[in-house]
Amino acid sequence: MKQIMIQTKSRSYPVFLGSGISSHMDDLLKQVLEKPSKILIMTDRTVYDLYGNKLEKVLKKLNVDVLTYVVPSGEASKSFETYYACLTFALENNMDRESVVVAFGGGVVGDLAGFVAATFMRGIPFIQVPTTLLAHDSAVGGKVAINHPLGKNMIGAFHQPHAIIYDTEFLKTLPQLEVRSGFAEVVKHGFIQDKSFVEQLMADIRHLDEITDQQLLWFIQKGIEVKAAVVAEDEKETGKRAFLNFGHTLGHALEAELGYGKISHGDAVACGMLFALWVSERTFNRSFHYETVKKWFEQIGFPVKMEENMDPKALINRMKHDKKTLHNQIRMVLLEEIGKPVLKPFNRETLISLLNEWKTEG
Amino acid sequence: MKQIMIQTKSRSYPVFLGSGISSHMDDLLKQVLEKPSKILIMTDRTVYDLYGNKLEKVLKKLNVDVLTYVVPSGEASKSFETYYACLTFALENNMDRESVVVAFGGGVVGDLAGFVAATFMRGIPFIQVPTTLLAHDSAVGGKVAINHPLGKNMIGAFHQPHAIIYDTEFLKTLPQLEVRSGFAEVVKHGFIQDKSFVEQLMADIRHLDEITDQQLLWFIQKGIEVKAAVVAEDEKETGKRAFLNFGHTLGHALEAELGYGKISHGDAVACGMLFALWVSERTFNRSFHYETVKKWFEQIGFPVKMEENMDPKALINRMKHDKKTLHNQIRMVLLEEIGKPVLKPFNRETLISLLNEWKTEG
Repeated sequence: MKQIMIQTKSRSYPVFLGSGISSHMDDLLKQVLEKPSKILIMTDRTVYDLYGNKLEKVLKKLNVDVLTYVVPSGEASKSFETYYACLTFALENNMDRESVVVAFGGGVVGDLAGFVAATFMRGIPFIQVPTTLLAHDSAVGGKVAINHPLGKNMIGAFHQPHAIIYDTEFLKTLPQLEVRSGFAEVVKHGFIQDKSFVEQLMADIRHLDEITDQQLLWFIQKGIEVKAAVVAEDEKETGKRAFLNFGHTLGHALEAELGYGKISHGDAVACGMLFALWVSERTFNRSFHYETVKKWFEQIGFPVKMEENMDPKALINRMKHDKKTLHNQIRMVLLEEIGKPVLKPFNRETLISLLNEWKTEG
Repeated sequence: MKQIMIQTKSRSYPVFLGSGISSHMDDLLKQVLEKPSKILIMTDRTVYDLYGNKLEKVLKKLNVDVLTYVVPSGEASKSFETYYACLTFALENNMDRESVVVAFGGGVVGDLAGFVAATFMRGIPFIQVPTTLLAHDSAVGGKVAINHPLGKNMIGAFHQPHAIIYDTEFLKTLPQLEVRSGFAEVVKHGFIQDKSFVEQLMADIRHLDEITDQQLLWFIQKGIEVKAAVVAEDEKETGKRAFLNFGHTLGHALEAELGYGKISHGDAVACGMLFALWVSERTFNRSFHYETVKKWFEQIGFPVKMEENMDPKALINRMKHDKKTLHNQIRMVLLEEIGKPVLKPFNRETLISLLNEWKTEG
């Protein structure tokens, strides 16, 4: 088992990473928490059906009341209605300020359960137990949120978990689409921080269904380390943390415009990264081997073009509702070189014409 | 104008206190904030009708978009529905992470607006502009929350404001009941921290309609200083801050059992403080001049007895839903002496019989 420490201003906590480690989760919890009054497992239908009973059984070894709240799988569970229902469940079951929430699932469950933990009685501890590759990113750093019909992740908080328990066994039952979605964030961590990591990924990983256990552990650890370094410097996204948004300006807009769930987060981000690379080449007048990256993305299975009927103006309107939009200027993360991201503001018109150009030529 | 600094682990900020100071609020804001992208004034109907236009006018001097969102007056506005409506309004009006919320009103508005600011795009700055005496307490310390049908303040956060601008002119239009409600928290601050302050209050303040401007400024400042000292030591209520709950165990239960708004918060707390004093005398076998305090409370106008038909068992059930309840034990703040509070756990049966006894003999 590997242990990576996440250091933030408000809390430091470990990521436990390994294969099969959730079978002794009771011991891991004892390392990071006093005995809680109750444990609330929040999870989704898919994860519960696969692993719910097993986790309940392990946690019951702590001799604590273990409650389970199962939400439907998918982004729609990051709604106000589900959030409110979770809080009601917690109150009805007499949870108190010494209870703990275990977020057992992917990014949706982590975000929802984290926001419940952040706001229940003004904040109680929570533990992230990610079951997806994408969650190597979302589970680290304490960003939790739910969606509003006017935008994704608009309502939320910074609430650091007490620990992240990352058992790669859970990834074995992940659909291919989900693995690819998570892999996009791994690639992103390379682009913004570590050129040799990108090069190694491009050399070693050509087909996601051929990844070895060793490769999986390697790039998850690497991805977490990049994320940890960034949030250690900037917990609340006032500066450097914004670079984690590489590929996300267009990515979020695509997700919103297509309707959440119609495109995976990672696919949208991958498409956004290609656009950001293409804009970076034009802005800084240097090559990022755009065509090579595009071919690699195609091989991995990422979408490398926007759909034909996608309207750049509609996408720009989505971007204007993004949290990173300030004073009505849209700020994109570009690369001066691989590992050296910068924030660059664009006005509406410039970005529309760039999108139109990329759509036909990129 | 007086200035009291509030120091917490997450932020330090000033309380500006004085008569008429809101007329140069534009200058005060410049001292604590960069120029915001937009200002959202959140207020209630009563305050808006009295002072809304005036405040809008002052803030517009900053050359910033000033939006106003008016909620109905009263505790019912600390609901999920109102909270959600505020967030929708903020998004529809393109507020962003450099916007600021001004909470203009009493405790209800401060709590609601504070929770909106705490969770909008994971947290934006806010300014407390209290208009009640009670808010000398609630505006200091960063506790913000909304209610759930199963309990008051169950959903919330710790989110410190960037400043508190306390203009005592606003208190002039306050109904007597509201002044009394706020005065209860002033008295509480005396009991938990400062014996001579209590003695001076008992000697000088006999009728709330005869308070001079000087007395008002004196005891508001004193109350804020006590609160500031407590939150400086314990921002997140893991220890000493729980003492601020003196009188609140029974107080909150009375409010909940009677239905919010049927008894003022301060009246309920005053009644709860009397009970806590009475229990303290029995627990520590010493006199707190219970009868003298009771007479003084009567003179001020506080209720000094529970209503005849109030059922102690029902009150205990309310207490068990209180956030301070841990592992099913109800913890009351008692006094070893004035200025020396302690937390004492009680089981259900003991507390029921104490309540029954106090109801007939206290």
